[in-house]
Amino acid sequence: MTQRPAVLIVQPHLGPLTGFLESLYDVWRLWEGPPVEAEHDIRALIVAGEFPLDMALLDRLPNLSLIACFTSGYEAIDVDACRARGLEVTHAPGVNHEDVADHALGLILAARRQILTGDRAVRDGTWRADSKIITPSMRGARLGIVGLGAIGEAAARRADAFGMETRWWGPRDKPAAWPRMASLADLARWAEVLLVACKADESNRGLIDAPVLHALGPEGLLVNVARGQLVDEAALIAALKTGTVGGAALDVFEVEPTDPARWADVPNTLLTPHTGGATTNAVPAMLGLLMQNLAAHFADQPVITPVR
Amino acid sequence: MTQRPAVLIVQPHLGPLTGFLESLYDVWRLWEGPPVEAEHDIRALIVAGEFPLDMALLDRLPNLSLIACFTSGYEAIDVDACRARGLEVTHAPGVNHEDVADHALGLILAARRQILTGDRAVRDGTWRADSKIITPSMRGARLGIVGLGAIGEAAARRADAFGMETRWWGPRDKPAAWPRMASLADLARWAEVLLVACKADESNRGLIDAPVLHALGPEGLLVNVARGQLVDEAALIAALKTGTVGGAALDVFEVEPTDPARWADVPNTLLTPHTGGATTNAVPAMLGLLMQNLAAHFADQPVITPVR
Repeated sequence: MTQRPAVLIVQPHLGPLTGFLESLYDVWRLWEGPPVEAEHDIRALIVAGEFPLDMALLDRLPNLSLIACFTSGYEAIDVDACRARGLEVTHAPGVNHEDVADHALGLILAARRQILTGDRAVRDGTWRADSKIITPSMRGARLGIVGLGAIGEAAARRADAFGMETRWWGPRDKPAAWPRMASLADLARWAEVLLVACKADESNRGLIDAPVLHALGPEGLLVNVARGQLVDEAALIAALKTGTVGGAALDVFEVEPTDPARWADVPNTLLTPHTGGATTNAVPAMLGLLMQNLAAHFADQPVITPVR
Repeated sequence: MTQRPAVLIVQPHLGPLTGFLESLYDVWRLWEGPPVEAEHDIRALIVAGEFPLDMALLDRLPNLSLIACFTSGYEAIDVDACRARGLEVTHAPGVNHEDVADHALGLILAARRQILTGDRAVRDGTWRADSKIITPSMRGARLGIVGLGAIGEAAARRADAFGMETRWWGPRDKPAAWPRMASLADLARWAEVLLVACKADESNRGLIDAPVLHALGPEGLLVNVARGQLVDEAALIAALKTGTVGGAALDVFEVEPTDPARWADVPNTLLTPHTGGATTNAVPAMLGLLMQNLAAHFADQPVITPVR
């Protein structure tokens, strides 16, 4: 083929990649309509790993050879099914875990120190001379981290600087500077703040379920910066409404964007639109890995960051 | 005197101290009316250090001998005038600087990572599949700290954990782990985030003025967790409205509570109701120092934490 390779961007929020990709490739955008006239040209899909692949779409692309996840996570991609079709899968590991950990601490601070309710009190005039909001300190607060991977460790290092006491749980033990609890239930019972920071896959869908939330308890704060599918969201909403769990600060949701109506009458929530890893540092780094993986793949070289 | 010493709580937001003080003292509350019948009994005022003393009130209390600041700061107390009247002055140093530093980082994270606007976007449905909020990373961000005292150092240690680059300025050089800039203007020009963390007194009123804000610039964020009087608030509001400065996250104000109308049409602000040092750890510690200072003073012993 003398023409430039063609690539198809699948999710609309990845549309801003177009300008960069067009420097080297013919770029198609799925949300503008099925790329009927390019079906034989498209050799790579550009995707976000939290969305399942449409296998019917794959069937219509006979020369497809690469699934390039722009993201670090690829939990919705059936990697085995891709390999069975001879497709290579790449992703962007190790570039935004520090930013996600920053966001986790931001959510913990904003929730515990009541920064949103404080801002509201200043603006609506309920801050009065005879009142004072007393908020819980960070020092000595018990932080339980679910999954001590790159994000979890980065969050724990930050928590150390605030004098928080950190423990963790994950299915596999490993050397760590913070003690591992025997079970997730033990961690939830111990923790004042339970931070979900683990990798998501089919094995841990709904890991944070009603019993875990009950163990976290009415003073506990659930923070999720990993993936929405790790939390049984219906159970969380029920637990927040009954006060079984104290509060939730969520950057990720079962369905994204989440339906605002779902949260309208749920108390003690702080919600951000999956912005944890989308930063001025991380996005260019993710773009760099994407471009390098595409270039290597099309040059028949080993890709830089394959999904293993 | 066989009766218990009488104390007068001056500001209404200190009213919750009544229960503790009543265990040992007769307690009067100024906002319930002048304590005419107790004028000869009152031997201590319980005050917050950000409010000026009413010298006419002092004239009416012939047996007053102690001004006990519940707070760490005592910037509105004319200590020399108190001493000239033979009054001892105590305060609560060293108990809430870690909490104030926590709040500073919370404000920086909430402002930079757009946690409030993110929460609003989730709830009002403006988070859509084809949009993505990209926010600035903490790593490498330049933090300029005005005043490297207990709060400033605690904030710098936390900023290190986020990979921020920290420099500082104060009128006096001292050994420090972070470089000192030659002037406040140099610090403001260099910084992306300018954190005001210094002690306030008459010598530095309005320290953060229009030229400093201009040096901080349209991408800069001003954060104040120290005292409102350190910032020329009218100049700040003007700079925010014209975009001369990028944003402000404020826990303290020239007048507290601040008038909400003052901020109604000021863009890019995050406002909290002076909650930085008012925590579950700090308040009991401040109460402890207050009780110890009162007990020592009434026993003619040296007080624990005199203003020096």
